[in-house]
Amino acid sequence: MRYLGKHLILELWGCDPKALDDQEGIEKMLVDSVNACGATLICIKTHKFSPQGVTGVAVLAESHISIHTWPELGYAAIDVFTCGSHVEPANALKPIREFLKPKHLEVLDVKRGIILEEGK
Amino acid sequence: MRYLGKHLILELWGCDPKALDDQEGIEKMLVDSVNACGATLICIKTHKFSPQGVTGVAVLAESHISIHTWPELGYAAIDVFTCGSHVEPANALKPIREFLKPKHLEVLDVKRGIILEEGK
Repeated sequence: MRYLGKHLILELWGCDPKALDDQEGIEKMLVDSVNACGATLICIKTHKFSPQGVTGVAVLAESHISIHTWPELGYAAIDVFTCGSHVEPANALKPIREFLKPKHLEVLDVKRGIILEEGK
Repeated sequence: MRYLGKHLILELWGCDPKALDDQEGIEKMLVDSVNACGATLICIKTHKFSPQGVTGVAVLAESHISIHTWPELGYAAIDVFTCGSHVEPANALKPIREFLKPKHLEVLDVKRGIILEEGK
């Protein structure tokens, strides 16, 4: 089954609350994740909310990586969406786990743009 | 069941190929979508690929909206991820459909950050 994009939906609970509120650290984690995947960064944007929480998006030549955090709940929602066979989104898991230290991690693996070949 | 984010995963096929390759038009569609949802735009970034295709991400005070297009296949992958009860991601569908004119649209509705209350 051919498809255009690999999209990992990550639910992280029990993360380090300080890391979840660390805008610079999250930006570095995004860059590390982009590199780990073998992707090409076009630009990155992070935003710190008051009183807490960070949003970050890395725009890639191969789609995007996003994060939204709730430090008060120890929760982060991350999406790693890549296209192209030279990029492996699962490789982003290592830098993400190292930085956020989630006690519990769920991964939903969604294929985007599925193309059914004739006869299948 | 309480949750933190509403995430609509949209698969659009049979779109207008010109619209899929129209960077300015896609940027306007993203802004219209943000407004339709009742969300607050922090920043927007679009990128045009050679020979074709556009990526766009709108970073919101309430998470993000992203689009990646394949004009040669008439396909777009869109994610509308919002948090907060004042924002309704489904309202983004109207400006998206009006601009891209998909012949076929699939919607996957994913709740992010589900919090189980005690006793449930």
